[in-house]
Amino acid sequence: MKAFMDKDFLLDTETAKKLYHEHAEKMPIIDYHCHLQPKEIYEDKKFRNLAEVWLGAGDRYGDHYKWRALRARGYEEDSISGPDDDYKKYLQFTESMPYFVGNPLYHWSHLEMRRYFGIEEIINAGNAKVIWDKANKVLETLTAREMMYKFNVKTVCTTDDPVDSLEWHKKMNGDPTLKVKVRPAFRPDKAINAELSWFKDWVNKLAEVTGKPVKDLKGLCSALADRIKFFDEMGSKLSDHALDVVRYAPATYEEADAVFRKAMKGGTITEEEQDKYKGYILVFLGREYAKYGWVQQYHIGALRNNSKSMLEKIGPDTGYDAIEDAVYMEKLSALLGELDRDGSLPKTILYCLNPRDNYALTVLAGCFQKEGVKGRVQVGTAWWFLDQLDGMRQNLETLMQTGLIAQSVGMLTDSRSFLAYPRHEYYRRLLCRMLGELVESGQYPESELDTLGRIVEDVCYNNAKDYFGF
Amino acid sequence: MKAFMDKDFLLDTETAKKLYHEHAEKMPIIDYHCHLQPKEIYEDKKFRNLAEVWLGAGDRYGDHYKWRALRARGYEEDSISGPDDDYKKYLQFTESMPYFVGNPLYHWSHLEMRRYFGIEEIINAGNAKVIWDKANKVLETLTAREMMYKFNVKTVCTTDDPVDSLEWHKKMNGDPTLKVKVRPAFRPDKAINAELSWFKDWVNKLAEVTGKPVKDLKGLCSALADRIKFFDEMGSKLSDHALDVVRYAPATYEEADAVFRKAMKGGTITEEEQDKYKGYILVFLGREYAKYGWVQQYHIGALRNNSKSMLEKIGPDTGYDAIEDAVYMEKLSALLGELDRDGSLPKTILYCLNPRDNYALTVLAGCFQKEGVKGRVQVGTAWWFLDQLDGMRQNLETLMQTGLIAQSVGMLTDSRSFLAYPRHEYYRRLLCRMLGELVESGQYPESELDTLGRIVEDVCYNNAKDYFGF
Amino acid sequence: MKAFMDKDFLLDTETAKKLYHEHAEKMPIIDYHCHLQPKEIYEDKKFRNLAEVWLGAGDRYGDHYKWRALRARGYEEDSISGPDDDYKKYLQFTESMPYFVGNPLYHWSHLEMRRYFGIEEIINAGNAKVIWDKANKVLETLTAREMMYKFNVKTVCTTDDPVDSLEWHKKMNGDPTLKVKVRPAFRPDKAINAELSWFKDWVNKLAEVTGKPVKDLKGLCSALADRIKFFDEMGSKLSDHALDVVRYAPATYEEADAVFRKAMKGGTITEEEQDKYKGYILVFLGREYAKYGWVQQYHIGALRNNSKSMLEKIGPDTGYDAIEDAVYMEKLSALLGELDRDGSLPKTILYCLNPRDNYALTVLAGCFQKEGVKGRVQVGTAWWFLDQLDGMRQNLETLMQTGLIAQSVGMLTDSRSFLAYPRHEYYRRLLCRMLGELVESGQYPESELDTLGRIVEDVCYNNAKDYFGF
Repeated sequence: MKAFMDKDFLLDTETAKKLYHEHAEKMPIIDYHCHLQPKEIYEDKKFRNLAEVWLGAGDRYGDHYKWRALRARGYEEDSISGPDDDYKKYLQFTESMPYFVGNPLYHWSHLEMRRYFGIEEIINAGNAKVIWDKANKVLETLTAREMMYKFNVKTVCTTDDPVDSLEWHKKMNGDPTLKVKVRPAFRPDKAINAELSWFKDWVNKLAEVTGKPVKDLKGLCSALADRIKFFDEMGSKLSDHALDVVRYAPATYEEADAVFRKAMKGGTITEEEQDKYKGYILVFLGREYAKYGWVQQYHIGALRNNSKSMLEKIGPDTGYDAIEDAVYMEKLSALLGELDRDGSLPKTILYCLNPRDNYALTVLAGCFQKEGVKGRVQVGTAWWFLDQLDGMRQNLETLMQTGLIAQSVGMLTDSRSFLAYPRHEYYRRLLCRMLGELVESGQYPESELDTLGRIVEDVCYNNAKDYFGF
Repeated sequence: MKAFMDKDFLLDTETAKKLYHEHAEKMPIIDYHCHLQPKEIYEDKKFRNLAEVWLGAGDRYGDHYKWRALRARGYEEDSISGPDDDYKKYLQFTESMPYFVGNPLYHWSHLEMRRYFGIEEIINAGNAKVIWDKANKVLETLTAREMMYKFNVKTVCTTDDPVDSLEWHKKMNGDPTLKVKVRPAFRPDKAINAELSWFKDWVNKLAEVTGKPVKDLKGLCSALADRIKFFDEMGSKLSDHALDVVRYAPATYEEADAVFRKAMKGGTITEEEQDKYKGYILVFLGREYAKYGWVQQYHIGALRNNSKSMLEKIGPDTGYDAIEDAVYMEKLSALLGELDRDGSLPKTILYCLNPRDNYALTVLAGCFQKEGVKGRVQVGTAWWFLDQLDGMRQNLETLMQTGLIAQSVGMLTDSRSFLAYPRHEYYRRLLCRMLGELVESGQYPESELDTLGRIVEDVCYNNAKDYFGF
Repeated sequence: MKAFMDKDFLLDTETAKKLYHEHAEKMPIIDYHCHLQPKEIYEDKKFRNLAEVWLGAGDRYGDHYKWRALRARGYEEDSISGPDDDYKKYLQFTESMPYFVGNPLYHWSHLEMRRYFGIEEIINAGNAKVIWDKANKVLETLTAREMMYKFNVKTVCTTDDPVDSLEWHKKMNGDPTLKVKVRPAFRPDKAINAELSWFKDWVNKLAEVTGKPVKDLKGLCSALADRIKFFDEMGSKLSDHALDVVRYAPATYEEADAVFRKAMKGGTITEEEQDKYKGYILVFLGREYAKYGWVQQYHIGALRNNSKSMLEKIGPDTGYDAIEDAVYMEKLSALLGELDRDGSLPKTILYCLNPRDNYALTVLAGCFQKEGVKGRVQVGTAWWFLDQLDGMRQNLETLMQTGLIAQSVGMLTDSRSFLAYPRHEYYRRLLCRMLGELVESGQYPESELDTLGRIVEDVCYNNAKDYFGF
């Protein structure tokens, strides 16, 4: 029996151990997609106790993975996202831990205790008090920035609205004490989702921020181009799009502009109109990104806010999202194809939330390569609900079989938490396990082990550095 | 080499063996969803020979798993579902057995011989005669009830039409010699499928049974409510819906009533009308179930009666059904969301027949939890074509990674056969194998083994007992 | 550690080794679906160097698997499909090889070197020169036909347009020196895709070839029937259809004829019209195939020509195709059901390009069996992007769990390359590995090993021989 989560956790062959300990483990982290709050990094946030940093107690942006698990256990919402006492929330979570068998929370939580706090205890009701005391002691000095330094994080990219002033990024750019590069990423979902009620207000805000009137689609595009330029000046190298459902249809400027005007008047936007308007904007933005050498990310397939009652009570992004199953390959192909037609397709990372789509998406990515860039269009790592051993394994297996793992830009956290960096370790261990298995089972020669070690280092760090141009 | 199907069948680690033999094996069975005939239980049916009980020879409700395999082998239908001699049918099946390598029939059939009949022979042409003789000897005393007692079955839920008088259930409720609790389950598909030719006749039958005229949708709802009350009085704790394709659209009473009236006049019901009518009825029924604390089951994704020629010849449910691939998450989310909106979503089990949907369905279930109930909405176990090692493994893996296996109500047979109980054993062995692997590979600590043993017992029995309220 | 790709490559148990070396290895090959050029077989093509035969250098029908991998590496198109020097192309490929870890190209390429050329070197930059020299020496005598003989290929079926004169097949039929049977296969995609621009020209060509005017759908059907008869006389036993998206709707002759006439006039064909026309033609063709005892193949789910810019530059079938995700089970069921209704469904092999569909397709196939034929309708082996260890494993696992592997007609290459035969070996090794695992883990009895050996031989060769009637 292998010891529980020892130094060779998940590493089941000698080659896997070698690849991990001699290559993966030492590489720094580029966390190119996350949802950390820039303000908290700049101010070097200090956490009042383990419940706050671990569960998001008292914060509506809590850890929704943990919240979901606690809800499934049948606990009261007050003691999950609500006003109950921090220690009560903490106890509830620790006593539930053994029942998370097979769930990534079990591993994530133990990795968090070990790597940040040096706490090796098994998390359960019996150890709750000792863990609480030890961790809170550590938190006296373990601030937000220290958490990042502990993991040798070189660069993080936050996720920012085009209308954001990036004031905290500005301050961080001028802060010589900050040892992590913090870059903004451009997330213009609100410019694209013309069917939503807040569209008009957001467009007006954009006009205000840019000091330009936005009366038509041309005006919108011009304002967005300004903001892309601004983000680029602030160090941004990438954008991000939540394409819950992929929308695309060929559209003339006049057609797309008509939808824009209708939306600004509060009219109902049909699905066909969404296809045209969103397609038009996505093509426009893609071309802009290409000008700056940016990477665009498409996150495809979330089905959001499924519990309307909880949406009303505690708002979005609190653990009530799920996985969409609408099909989309034809539209996505047409969208990428339109950008590819005249050579203006930027580097692109495609993420799917439904593992059903791993194969189709990975193969589609392979149709849009370009000389001079390794993996110009590539599939992103397993995301959100798939960011666990089975989801990552499927993602990596598909990438190996129908693409090239050697060129992947690897892992990211997509997290709001400073405690999420062990997920890079989790991913790296699995990667080394899978590659090690190929060697030990006679599927890849031991004589190429040096190259394989470099491939591991590339996937962990070098590829992202080169691809994004950090 | 591991011996063929010995006591440690599928248990490949010491921990797996421990979990199975010390925990899973001893737990009674609650078979909360099956298609046994209440009459046969009450009358304690005796079988004329092994062909009848094993293959369904002479019965149109035969074992369609076995029938499908025999058809694929190219045998004549007369010797599968038709008038041919029992022994001929039996011989054909036994001689085919070695060619079922990799198919669950191979394991099911051997488990059936071993656990019910004490017959350890490998099933093949050479052993056909000896098995036939031994088994028929055993069948002299092994009646329907004895088969259930052999497996320590505490409760079974049959599947019953709302218009059913439940006469056999009544008799069984009053039978002190019956050592199994037999409960009805409410299956109102015929009230929902307004597009089918027999809708009107069925509604009239419902009116007759309830003694209430059913002239409009209000009348239908009232009659259904009566029958739910009646089923509840008869011990029912759950309903079941075959949502081959998930239909839902928000609808006013007037809209849904118009569809009802059209259907009663034999009009053609469009897909949009189906969405509205079915959505309305499903919401109505969900609210009723919630009042009684019932569990509702949605079985999603069958594609039925694919061979029209065989449908005409031997009728439905004879082995010509398949797996639907229409997408449905948005509609299902909206349906559950409508019930959730005002707090009237009952406990719900969601089953998918297409393994493509495991992830999306499991994650969606996680959006509809509620304080005080463990796993209020949960994914059901692998079903029908997926009720085998690969299908169950995918189902369990997804449940572990994105939900909580610890709270699953576990296995059911969904079977028409009294010989189906070893499928519980099959599931339990796989469950213990998977959990054992987590421990032995250092993914779950050995020090929590007592808790893990309790989790196994919960999934095998306690969770179902608590969840359904048996 | 297992040695790299030794004689027991992929065979991880003693039973697997036994099954492979005593059964699979010795069986001849029937490659019943490939894209070899009949002319090259007849003329016994000699290759100018390793780059030509291995990469398709200088040929627009190059190896698009390799081309895709090289593009993902960021190389210039000129040195992939373009005018660059053969040796430059070759070097680029060999130096990339270590970066193909986990991709089937790594195994395919090494198998190709070993089995055809006796070259055991690891393929990488360091060994490039020695491999080049050795292989080119071998190519002095290793012609197209010799490549086929080396693998004991008994029969290959090429893929041919109905208007093809089959002149090379005629010559091969009369060539006593040719030791492989080369049969045509009927691929009438151009008769079916009435929405494409070249439809009218193709129909006119068909009229010319048959010497019959084709003025209406009746004329088209008559001409196609003539060509089927001709293909049958030339030894054809099967057809092939690329159903990228499955189209079917019930249609009268008049309805389908109206679409035909519209298409011949260059009108735009709607999706509904495609459903009716294509459905009509597919049913017509299915009935014709049935008359001759042919097998029909449906290849479902390609999404083609995704990069329009590359389509314009270098044409179709050059590595820019992907995987469709449109759903289709209802339409496919209706199409097969229509043929089944009157007993005129021919033997049919269904292939899916999206592994998401393995389960639904395998189960659907099981609904259309018929006495006297083993596996009348069956799922084909993993295809194109899925023709690798993970794709084949999923395909085989699904077939075992929900169908009967014992009756599968097994592997084919679907390749344009004479170097593709090791893929049969790859498949056979995986098959034996999976069956071996069943035995060694106690899931199938060792005492049935002789039967299992025969099953392996059947899947490798005998089943195809019987099923196609070669």
